[in-house]
Amino acid sequence: MIATLSYDTTAHELQLLDQRILPSVVEYVTCRTSSDVAQAIATMVVRGAPAIGVTAAYGVLLGAREAMADNDPARAMSRVFDSLAASRPTAVNLFWALERMRQVYLQHSPLRQSTLDALQCEALRIHQQDVEDNRCLGDHGAQLLPDRGTVLTHCNAGALATAGYGTALGVIRSAVAMGKELQVYATETRPFLQGARLTAFELQQDRIPVTLICDNMVGAMMAQGKIQSVVVGADRIAANGDTANKIGTYGIAVLAMAHGVPFYVAAPSSTIDRAMTSGKNIVIEQREPSEVTHFMGYPVAPEGIAVENPSFDLTPAKYISAIITERGVLKPPFAELKSSC
Amino acid sequence: MIATLSYDTTAHELQLLDQRILPSVVEYVTCRTSSDVAQAIATMVVRGAPAIGVTAAYGVLLGAREAMADNDPARAMSRVFDSLAASRPTAVNLFWALERMRQVYLQHSPLRQSTLDALQCEALRIHQQDVEDNRCLGDHGAQLLPDRGTVLTHCNAGALATAGYGTALGVIRSAVAMGKELQVYATETRPFLQGARLTAFELQQDRIPVTLICDNMVGAMMAQGKIQSVVVGADRIAANGDTANKIGTYGIAVLAMAHGVPFYVAAPSSTIDRAMTSGKNIVIEQREPSEVTHFMGYPVAPEGIAVENPSFDLTPAKYISAIITERGVLKPPFAELKSSC
Repeated sequence: MIATLSYDTTAHELQLLDQRILPSVVEYVTCRTSSDVAQAIATMVVRGAPAIGVTAAYGVLLGAREAMADNDPARAMSRVFDSLAASRPTAVNLFWALERMRQVYLQHSPLRQSTLDALQCEALRIHQQDVEDNRCLGDHGAQLLPDRGTVLTHCNAGALATAGYGTALGVIRSAVAMGKELQVYATETRPFLQGARLTAFELQQDRIPVTLICDNMVGAMMAQGKIQSVVVGADRIAANGDTANKIGTYGIAVLAMAHGVPFYVAAPSSTIDRAMTSGKNIVIEQREPSEVTHFMGYPVAPEGIAVENPSFDLTPAKYISAIITERGVLKPPFAELKSSC
Repeated sequence: MIATLSYDTTAHELQLLDQRILPSVVEYVTCRTSSDVAQAIATMVVRGAPAIGVTAAYGVLLGAREAMADNDPARAMSRVFDSLAASRPTAVNLFWALERMRQVYLQHSPLRQSTLDALQCEALRIHQQDVEDNRCLGDHGAQLLPDRGTVLTHCNAGALATAGYGTALGVIRSAVAMGKELQVYATETRPFLQGARLTAFELQQDRIPVTLICDNMVGAMMAQGKIQSVVVGADRIAANGDTANKIGTYGIAVLAMAHGVPFYVAAPSSTIDRAMTSGKNIVIEQREPSEVTHFMGYPVAPEGIAVENPSFDLTPAKYISAIITERGVLKPPFAELKSSC
């Protein structure tokens, strides 16, 4: 499996697989400062809520190294946290990871070498935990998929969206490893084409049969009985189960319900924002119109056209058959998670 | 308004606006033979069921001119009809126009100069009738739209999909001409981007406010109460009201019903296939995988990936609030049209 991100503890560099140019080009972007990291998150070199969380943790570590050389290290650290927090507003894992790093920083402040050591340890732990959580989550979720059939997934909630293995694709990987005979429909996921570029690529590499469709083909496939199950990732889950995920998820959930197809959300428990009582208050990031109007710099729409480009939408809990986390499978009504892995 | 197609009765040439390269390039393709015409339909130089019908009528005329010079004109004519009929399988207007031309041909066979005159007269009549029907249809449908609000349309059912004025966009044009304060959401319509390239372009030229969204954003916009009405075209309507239209239409219809948004189909009555009792038997054209996997020759998916690329889907009648034709507005249950324009 190709590595989404890796941190070199000797060179103090974060290598991020550039997901904007996959699958044509496999190239890594090197981040040496926290602003390199914030920039990489904002421009979607790295994407996927869990991967963003891990990346941001390393961003704090790199920022702390810079802050050591600053006249006012405490103020510099505050800037590091702020700029990373502003890089993508919807992914709660980003804030979760920043909070974990902030706690370690506060425990070991003022900033000195031992603080750096502690921060590095915590970032590596967050990284490692993400991979372990995904495997655990995958094993829980695999039980829910049929023994044979076709599973639809949207966007990329795979190894490339996490530190490895994946959430929605982790569930599919675990099910296939258990011997289930599954095929996958991957939606291309406009405008950024994460499904076409990343999910199709990942599954093809794993030799899991995958068929690419445009986002607007989901209804037709369901009407023809070609989809037995839907599993998607999440960027933020409110305490009542309402889920913010890649734009288009909500439409798929409505279609799934209309066709009696189960609709599963797979995400580490760090994606659950217990402070958010319902999804209505989740901030939905709006991205640049050019993502819709241009392709590789070439215009596909008339100049000056108005565009809406929300990066996420909100799927109310009533459409969700189960939320799969590393701690277990949560079914409606979505109360506090009790089971553990 | 830019001309979709025009026939030069002196040079015996059909000029087709090349809709594959709009809006960046405004260029016409010249067809001098019936196989030029069949090729132009198959490769989507021209698209949109009504425009395909008119184009095919001219294809028969050009074919008849060639057949005059053939050793076996009757057999040559048979080949002309067959190749045009095979160019796009789903658009019933194609078969309707070919049938009208065939009747005129049979009435005036064997093939001679007076046959050509009669065929030319019929092709021009089909062309002219399309424009008149659309204006009539537009006036009927305009009554259904709100006095102010936002109308969603999918694909391009505009002047560019017809000989002029448009069906779904004809309804919007008529409503705006009546003084209704409307805005339009145009879905980009993957994979061919007819919404981004054609609908956005047409409406922008007409100064009707239009906002471009990706196909997968429709659910989010409806959930936010931003869409008051949907109006789309049709490629074939079965006798029970089931409608084949551009892939993605069905998903929008399901979302519209889930949000209590009225969903209208606008099409000339020639789109109604009375011989087809339900939509289940409508042949859905499958197109090349490369439309999905490549953009302007540049790959956006891994090599060798499996793809489904149905060009249309089927919206069952139960999702359709009304079918708007030049003869009037038909409401469920969809019995024979009685009213006339």
